Amino acid sequence: MNAEIITIGDELLIGQVIDTNSAWLGQQLSGLGIKLCYKSSISDNKVAILNALKDAELRSDIIILTGGLGPTKDDITKVTICEYFNTSLVQNDKVLEWVQSIFRFRKMPMLDVNNMQALVPANCEILWNKNGTAPGMWFDVNDKIFISLPGVPFEMKTIFEEEAVPKINSKFKLPSIFHRTLQTVSIGESFLAKKIEDIENSLPSYIKLAYLPSVGAVRLRFSAYGEDKISLEKEVEEYVKQVYEKISDHIYGEGDASLTQTLGNLLKERKQTISTAESCTGGYIAHQLTSVPGSSSYFMGSIVCYANKIKTQELGVSEDILRNNGAVSEECVMQMAQAVRLKMNTTFGISCSGIAGPDGGTNDKPLGTVWIAIASEKETLAQVFNFGDNRERTIHRTGLMAMDMLRKKILKG
Amino acid sequence: MNAEIITIGDELLIGQVIDTNSAWLGQQLSGLGIKLCYKSSISDNKVAILNALKDAELRSDIIILTGGLGPTKDDITKVTICEYFNTSLVQNDKVLEWVQSIFRFRKMPMLDVNNMQALVPANCEILWNKNGTAPGMWFDVNDKIFISLPGVPFEMKTIFEEEAVPKINSKFKLPSIFHRTLQTVSIGESFLAKKIEDIENSLPSYIKLAYLPSVGAVRLRFSAYGEDKISLEKEVEEYVKQVYEKISDHIYGEGDASLTQTLGNLLKERKQTISTAESCTGGYIAHQLTSVPGSSSYFMGSIVCYANKIKTQELGVSEDILRNNGAVSEECVMQMAQAVRLKMNTTFGISCSGIAGPDGGTNDKPLGTVWIAIASEKETLAQVFNFGDNRERTIHRTGLMAMDMLRKKILKG
Repeated sequence: MNAEIITIGDELLIGQVIDTNSAWLGQQLSGLGIKLCYKSSISDNKVAILNALKDAELRSDIIILTGGLGPTKDDITKVTICEYFNTSLVQNDKVLEWVQSIFRFRKMPMLDVNNMQALVPANCEILWNKNGTAPGMWFDVNDKIFISLPGVPFEMKTIFEEEAVPKINSKFKLPSIFHRTLQTVSIGESFLAKKIEDIENSLPSYIKLAYLPSVGAVRLRFSAYGEDKISLEKEVEEYVKQVYEKISDHIYGEGDASLTQTLGNLLKERKQTISTAESCTGGYIAHQLTSVPGSSSYFMGSIVCYANKIKTQELGVSEDILRNNGAVSEECVMQMAQAVRLKMNTTFGISCSGIAGPDGGTNDKPLGTVWIAIASEKETLAQVFNFGDNRERTIHRTGLMAMDMLRKKILKG
Repeated sequence: MNAEIITIGDELLIGQVIDTNSAWLGQQLSGLGIKLCYKSSISDNKVAILNALKDAELRSDIIILTGGLGPTKDDITKVTICEYFNTSLVQNDKVLEWVQSIFRFRKMPMLDVNNMQALVPANCEILWNKNGTAPGMWFDVNDKIFISLPGVPFEMKTIFEEEAVPKINSKFKLPSIFHRTLQTVSIGESFLAKKIEDIENSLPSYIKLAYLPSVGAVRLRFSAYGEDKISLEKEVEEYVKQVYEKISDHIYGEGDASLTQTLGNLLKERKQTISTAESCTGGYIAHQLTSVPGSSSYFMGSIVCYANKIKTQELGVSEDILRNNGAVSEECVMQMAQAVRLKMNTTFGISCSGIAGPDGGTNDKPLGTVWIAIASEKETLAQVFNFGDNRERTIHRTGLMAMDMLRKKILKG
């Protein structure tokens, strides 16, 4: 089963917009067991669209188009599809009613061009767009499926998931697929691969392991393909167990959970609270923690002490330490973490101080050196890292590492 | 002059990697006055690459390939190009020396596969890769140009800018192009377009205006194409003047400057300093300010007071105000901004408090309501906004708006 994607729009070609739609669709298709063989981006141009459709029909079973369904005159996907299938646009009354209700709800006047959203090629089935005015469309022609979706990502995603996937599943006999994803942190992709090399090599041909890396974190995705879903699940479970045995310390969760969300859930379950005292991250850790809805139940606040005098004034870091050990030192971050914990009356205090760069590195403390501390009532742990010479990455990795240190501490009790 | 891009790699099709390379190349080509007509992503597969090259050669003058140049066995771009041009791989001694020197420098053993990085098709010219081991390649065949680049973004970008662009410019007579970009903030794309509609309509055909929007900000890019660069510059200058007359308040800078960077420069020039007191943004504004290298010369610190008791304890917000006016009120943010300014002894104090959601909206203060205040020695200004129902966007737009308020205040003196 082969698929291809055609994205339509000049904004994609001149680089105004980065095409995230087709990466998302690629993930979904691969999740369904459909191989995406080709994707192309073309201009809002009739000849380009017709040629792309012709080429696609020759090589693929499922052809997904995105974009060009807006109400303005540069959106020509629908009329061009009509020309391709030698049919014409007809009004769909249910869609018209829906579009009119949206305008009534928004208390906006409806223009003629908006009415045209309800015109669709006569040979299509509607894929309902509950988030917008441009309907998705499904064409089943000579056993090839054409799916036309709007380019707006959240409209496209919902239509694909809720409307197109069920139709694809009933049209084609797809293999059973079972996915399981482990979220890892604080270990690089190649080190991870080395650690679980034996497990990976022992996988049967119908179970694949994918490494999906981002800065400081790697998702490990098992995908099993076959006839019997239950036995696939069981088999994957065995391999997952082996992976846990090798790297359990690095696995913070499964599925789509972020580390921030996972840490938040741990704190919430235990009714524990947290505050941060940040130097080199400049508020990034607090920002990450509060990006999770509901974080106000465990996050109290932060002292961002970028200047040394603020470290002394707000957190009581002793001037001796700043003079003798420096702001980037074990002693300094321990005082910071303890002080913010007491000040904000929280279960834990997190602190960090480091050299994010681009300047400020020395022989003793090269660029990227970061001290992180976690204070609780009983003890304060501190650890030093080197995150390298990129400012943004150092800030990002400091945040991940601080949260992972706290996560491990909570789990150890 | 038409170009097209072929990106090679399974990771692009299954959505493991979002293709940012081709958006960047699209921007560069459009900047050179070359129209990018088509881009495609294909698998690491010989037949797919050969077909893509054949199709591309029929419709485009410049064909840019990225990816598939690594040392492992799934990287087959070079051998496939050889097959396409009916030639063979030959060793390039300068590249071999370069690759060997990289391994010596990294103190890593060199494997046979690494030596193969120095093999290139006999009919190519080398595009030097000073950042990596895979050379770029330039093929001039029947007046069509084929450019093969590695997929690693920073290698690809440097080779394209420093090696390929000069060769493109000497091979083709491209029109003179002059770009000028105005950075605007706190006005939506459609309102902006409405305000400068007359100017846009009066542009001659050889001057284009592009809107490049992101959350809360829009870049306006004039591009002028012709023979005489100096007269183009002058002409654009006239239109830019007219735009400034209409929307000067919203233009914070030109070129690539970010609002954070621009604000930082203003503070640095005037030797002024800043601190923040953040509730709903949870440290985001401090994080943004400190994402700029050198920000320690003007940013002192922040009090992130997520919990109300921290607002009282650290910033002295009166309990009466919290009870009667609420934390999301003019009175509260004014006290916060004044207090943090005094506490950190800075020229300005920025504060904000709002309902980022998803819960917490009321009839009086719907979701997205945010109060922002700026305190200086003489006065404290506060303003209320509604940024809508998306948590992430509300946090982001609060940051932009707070920085823009301060920018305007500084400029007014």
